[in-house]
Amino acid sequence: MYSLTVTPKFGDIDGLGHVNNTVMPGWFEQARNPIYRYFNPEFKFDNWNLILARYEVDFVAQLYFDQDVEIRTFISKIGRSSFEVHQEAWQGEKLCTKGRTVLVHFDFNEQRSVAIPDDIRVTMAEHLVSGEN
Amino acid sequence: MYSLTVTPKFGDIDGLGHVNNTVMPGWFEQARNPIYRYFNPEFKFDNWNLILARYEVDFVAQLYFDQDVEIRTFISKIGRSSFEVHQEAWQGEKLCTKGRTVLVHFDFNEQRSVAIPDDIRVTMAEHLVSGEN
Amino acid sequence: MYSLTVTPKFGDIDGLGHVNNTVMPGWFEQARNPIYRYFNPEFKFDNWNLILARYEVDFVAQLYFDQDVEIRTFISKIGRSSFEVHQEAWQGEKLCTKGRTVLVHFDFNEQRSVAIPDDIRVTMAEHLVSGEN
Amino acid sequence: MYSLTVTPKFGDIDGLGHVNNTVMPGWFEQARNPIYRYFNPEFKFDNWNLILARYEVDFVAQLYFDQDVEIRTFISKIGRSSFEVHQEAWQGEKLCTKGRTVLVHFDFNEQRSVAIPDDIRVTMAEHLVSGEN
Repeated sequence: MYSLTVTPKFGDIDGLGHVNNTVMPGWFEQARNPIYRYFNPEFKFDNWNLILARYEVDFVAQLYFDQDVEIRTFISKIGRSSFEVHQEAWQGEKLCTKGRTVLVHFDFNEQRSVAIPDDIRVTMAEHLVSGEN
Repeated sequence: MYSLTVTPKFGDIDGLGHVNNTVMPGWFEQARNPIYRYFNPEFKFDNWNLILARYEVDFVAQLYFDQDVEIRTFISKIGRSSFEVHQEAWQGEKLCTKGRTVLVHFDFNEQRSVAIPDDIRVTMAEHLVSGEN
Repeated sequence: MYSLTVTPKFGDIDGLGHVNNTVMPGWFEQARNPIYRYFNPEFKFDNWNLILARYEVDFVAQLYFDQDVEIRTFISKIGRSSFEVHQEAWQGEKLCTKGRTVLVHFDFNEQRSVAIPDDIRVTMAEHLVSGEN
Repeated sequence: MYSLTVTPKFGDIDGLGHVNNTVMPGWFEQARNPIYRYFNPEFKFDNWNLILARYEVDFVAQLYFDQDVEIRTFISKIGRSSFEVHQEAWQGEKLCTKGRTVLVHFDFNEQRSVAIPDDIRVTMAEHLVSGEN
């Protein structure tokens, strides 16, 4: 599990007084940086090799301005060339948002998916959760 | 069906040269304004009565900087208090992104869901699609 | 003068009920697309030749959710290699925000500023305003 | 001086491979949270008493994806009802962006500026810098 602490910005809060739904994919993306590092240790875009295929976000409880948020990031599925990341946003003791993102190991030059290398597969397995909240 | 034309901004494009995934929920939110008007004709936050419960986004093809994007918005399901919005982002002749958002008619004071009024139900039915892309 | 109409998104509105200050640079950027086209007709990033050096934004009046916003874009100064864009956000009859952005014609390979070509200089002069609001 | 560490997100990077200019006002806003706390210790919007009047941002050097950014925040001027915040974004040993934001202590009900209370004035003075980078 990876943990990232995010401080809400004034402008993340919408007219209803809680974090707007459109903010979450950005927080989840930020929290996936360690996973992006597996595939792109130098964070260079020239040879970037991941593509985001899909995400789902469930808004379970409201997030507010006055407290930091912890984003917890897990690997929830490892396929041949694709994998799934499960993420949770917690504020205080409360699970507020859940996300599930499907990423594909991808060769942009040949425009096709590529099998996940074995060494990355091993590293990802250490962060794998079978069940889920 | 509602149609909204969006012009990509320079900053919507990420290091891979296409519209970043985190941009889409904002475009889809903007395109749902006509539906928000059903429930909140004056767009005031004091008595706002909708809450977003969940969304899913599928990234089918890449969106680029050099061409406007059309967001098409449909109602895809009408329940007792909740409903589902199906959305598509098209660039040129190409379907690039699909979204599905679940919204709930909600009483924030009493913190509970409320049945969708009949007149709104009728209006929504006019934008209903049964199948889907 | 260039005119762009922007529809505020739900999430553009912050906890005070008006468009958050951080939204404006994005709207202004979007409205500068026609100017970016002078220098980069095909909107490709490989040979992009503009760099943003500075901007200032003045928040004169609040912008609200319930009405479209018109962004008016002018050229306010033309130098040897740099130029200035003056922009205004109007809602209804009201001037709400003013922006001033300095851009430089730039060679990224050689990392140095380059004189603005004469044909672009002529086109820009057509959108030049001398005074200002 | 206040220090905040920000981790760039994949989507903060634009087609030129560096942090897009529109990202900075959000990072600077986030880094001003400790100053907002002076005036609004509970971070509630009902009695919020600050309004942002103006900002300027200077882009001195490019910010990249692969390294955290430190935002340094100072008070640079204290007036009767308004004050100025000077901010800097550093990546590694390099000053990359500078910001200057004018905020006004404001009574939203009466729609007028209000003198900054003496106790806040004292606290702010501890973070005051006279010169500037």
